[in-house]
Amino acid sequence: MVRLDEIVARFGGDLVGNGGILVRGVATLESAEADQLGFLSNSKYQGQLAVTRAAAVILGPEARDACPVAAIVTAQPYLYFARVAQWFNPPPRPAVGVHPSAVVETVIPASVSVGPHAWIGAGASIGENTVVGAGCAIGENARIGAGSWLHPRVTVAAGCRIGERAIVHSGAVIGSDGFGFARDAAAWVKIPQTGRVVVGDDVEIGANTTIDRGALEDTVIGDGVKLDNQIQVAHNVHIGANTAMAGCVGIAGSAKVGAGCTVGGGAIILGHIELADGVHVSAGTLVSKSIATPGSYTGTVPFMAHADWLKNFSRLRHLDAMADKIRALEMRLAELENR
Amino acid sequence: MVRLDEIVARFGGDLVGNGGILVRGVATLESAEADQLGFLSNSKYQGQLAVTRAAAVILGPEARDACPVAAIVTAQPYLYFARVAQWFNPPPRPAVGVHPSAVVETVIPASVSVGPHAWIGAGASIGENTVVGAGCAIGENARIGAGSWLHPRVTVAAGCRIGERAIVHSGAVIGSDGFGFARDAAAWVKIPQTGRVVVGDDVEIGANTTIDRGALEDTVIGDGVKLDNQIQVAHNVHIGANTAMAGCVGIAGSAKVGAGCTVGGGAIILGHIELADGVHVSAGTLVSKSIATPGSYTGTVPFMAHADWLKNFSRLRHLDAMADKIRALEMRLAELENR
Amino acid sequence: MVRLDEIVARFGGDLVGNGGILVRGVATLESAEADQLGFLSNSKYQGQLAVTRAAAVILGPEARDACPVAAIVTAQPYLYFARVAQWFNPPPRPAVGVHPSAVVETVIPASVSVGPHAWIGAGASIGENTVVGAGCAIGENARIGAGSWLHPRVTVAAGCRIGERAIVHSGAVIGSDGFGFARDAAAWVKIPQTGRVVVGDDVEIGANTTIDRGALEDTVIGDGVKLDNQIQVAHNVHIGANTAMAGCVGIAGSAKVGAGCTVGGGAIILGHIELADGVHVSAGTLVSKSIATPGSYTGTVPFMAHADWLKNFSRLRHLDAMADKIRALEMRLAELENR
Repeated sequence: MVRLDEIVARFGGDLVGNGGILVRGVATLESAEADQLGFLSNSKYQGQLAVTRAAAVILGPEARDACPVAAIVTAQPYLYFARVAQWFNPPPRPAVGVHPSAVVETVIPASVSVGPHAWIGAGASIGENTVVGAGCAIGENARIGAGSWLHPRVTVAAGCRIGERAIVHSGAVIGSDGFGFARDAAAWVKIPQTGRVVVGDDVEIGANTTIDRGALEDTVIGDGVKLDNQIQVAHNVHIGANTAMAGCVGIAGSAKVGAGCTVGGGAIILGHIELADGVHVSAGTLVSKSIATPGSYTGTVPFMAHADWLKNFSRLRHLDAMADKIRALEMRLAELENR
Repeated sequence: MVRLDEIVARFGGDLVGNGGILVRGVATLESAEADQLGFLSNSKYQGQLAVTRAAAVILGPEARDACPVAAIVTAQPYLYFARVAQWFNPPPRPAVGVHPSAVVETVIPASVSVGPHAWIGAGASIGENTVVGAGCAIGENARIGAGSWLHPRVTVAAGCRIGERAIVHSGAVIGSDGFGFARDAAAWVKIPQTGRVVVGDDVEIGANTTIDRGALEDTVIGDGVKLDNQIQVAHNVHIGANTAMAGCVGIAGSAKVGAGCTVGGGAIILGHIELADGVHVSAGTLVSKSIATPGSYTGTVPFMAHADWLKNFSRLRHLDAMADKIRALEMRLAELENR
Repeated sequence: MVRLDEIVARFGGDLVGNGGILVRGVATLESAEADQLGFLSNSKYQGQLAVTRAAAVILGPEARDACPVAAIVTAQPYLYFARVAQWFNPPPRPAVGVHPSAVVETVIPASVSVGPHAWIGAGASIGENTVVGAGCAIGENARIGAGSWLHPRVTVAAGCRIGERAIVHSGAVIGSDGFGFARDAAAWVKIPQTGRVVVGDDVEIGANTTIDRGALEDTVIGDGVKLDNQIQVAHNVHIGANTAMAGCVGIAGSAKVGAGCTVGGGAIILGHIELADGVHVSAGTLVSKSIATPGSYTGTVPFMAHADWLKNFSRLRHLDAMADKIRALEMRLAELENR
């Protein structure tokens, strides 16, 4: 249990009410119990303040007067909540040391934790305090920065580099071959993929996400990039700092995504195109051309009851004809009007 | 080899013809050989009856008279086929016991099978007769119900729960962190993901499917849910009982999908929306709003020859202008008509 | 370092300039250094010839006169580059033999390399010179052809077959159960998936790609097929020889894709349909009907600035009404014209 005034001393904000109130953790405003700290970051839920059971609430100045319990007032309640939540919930770090079933073919710091059945290849470099989970496979000469956490069953292929404080979730594959072939009549001849994947610091990579190594040069993931699950990043892609992508996104080869971008779930970015910094792509959108101007971009169709869809969307096959008919009507009408 | 009348005694249905006929298994009507039991569940294939080599056929009452060989008549031939096929093809269960290369840090029943290089963390609970395949990683305090089958290389993260009789295919990841961050100027601050994944009974989870743990509360998968391969289920999603989803579906955070729903391959369901029970989403559809009424919903575009597509779909950029032109034409025409 | 005339002696082409020039490898025209061999395969980059630092350039006859340095002239520069790059960059083959931590329950050739924590089940057959990477799981009675390379953490389920010279990337799952259920009132009854996956020779399968085993018959992947990452191939699909598919493609059950096809990233092919040989499907396209004629097919919508999209795409809900309005206008106008 922690006193509210301890939290404010550590994280800032204005304390309203009794600083001696004790809380054991954070919770949503709706579910918080009498010994928890709730938070209000979306004005849509402000009505819940009146009935909250929370001991106290993290909230913005505009909600201060509506709060019936103690409050920590801050300009960015969600960010404040994130920091307090991290402090209350340090991830349960596995014990330091190499599990006897692991195979480590390189020298690693004593502060590293290597789980059961993990393999670290010859020449690999693992930073201080890094966690290599059960069943991970780290190829020869790969490099993982200090303070990183690889959850169970992550693959990092030979020669690839991951920066400091990375979090990589289970099933992710960093450094598989890019998809490159030259045609030889009907068949395909493989282009060797001799580049690396180079991942910056403070990057999070989701479960079963794949990042291919470059063909001749590297695939590059900037500092602070956050990739959700099941994302496919093809060879020679560059992703700028602090860009975040939701699940199931696919990025084709040699695309360059700027810094501070967001990409919604299931979006596809075609190859060899470039997105400026600060571009926001909506979920399900196919980005088929470069985007030079920051802003939000969308290309999806509305869904509707299937019967309505049948009626409306079959028209798409005839849009061009519809446009022609409109033009013809305009001309005929102009002629009538000019009679 | 099994007698037809044995099958009917066990599974019901009306036997037409010689109950002493012996069959060694089930097959499609088209490929069944003289010692196999065919089935006809789609009237489209009824023409194949005349030429089948099957010893006997499972079929509905409407096809009874058209069948030239013995038949088992039932109201639901496909369901009957499923049950008989299960009986003929019990999955080849690995030997009971813990492989010497596995690492088991908890007490498990003697009836469990643990494959090579599997890891089961401290405090985990594994039900009777469960199979934990080669290379699986079961985190601390996870719980797997009795009679479940985890194929090789499944990950179940710490604290997550899977019910009884689950089937989880290779590469699936249950309990990776949800994708939650608060903005701090240009950078992102991680929201600890402290909820669990709670999976009901009789659930099947496909290969390389990922289900994230909840942020503060749990991600919940109902009884009897069937998830195909490569599906992404984000944090705090709820999926109702017996809902089935085809491959490559993505469901964003906090979405609630009702019971008895079906979702077609590659569909995307956005976050914080709600689908009623009995909603059927077509393949490739982006569901961007809640759906309160059961029924089928679609939002996809027809494909066409590329040249036709170029001509038609460029018009989409000008739909609004087309609508304006139509309105202008209507007004001009009304004026002429009223002259 | 290799002499240009050695390369030409081995791979053909016309040498222009000094055959004694030494190169240490291949690089893009833009990045090639003074001891590297560049290549020009796309006329768009011909301008880079004038400023290249490369020792020599692989190029087509049309660019011969524009090349300021030595050249190897060939009709297919990209194919030539692929072959030379393979020769310069033989993949770093792990040592032959079985790692002591691996579990091999069958007899394998002495030429095979089996990595740490790999498992090969009873009755499996592994061809000469095959590499089974760390943490792979090869089920009972599976068969892997000679000269194949399974990267770390690949799963091949019981009874499945992979041909010769396959490359399978990390996290791929070959032979998970197909997604087949019969309805039993609200619930689902599993159809046993008793077919296999049968993969031809010279196939490459990407990271975290999944290929389901057939329900009663087999799923079949032809010779020379190339599948990128995160692809889902459902049960009983057939893919013809030398077809190539980009990342995130989903193919539903029993679809038949011809030979020599290409499928762009994120495309979805529905079940039970058939694509002729030589069909090219654009990225993001949903193929909902069979295609009998070779050629390129597309069904995607243009993306645009979000505000423009809101204005234009809401019209899609009213396309049918727009068509009706046009028809009404045509009739009213015809009446006026005939007065």
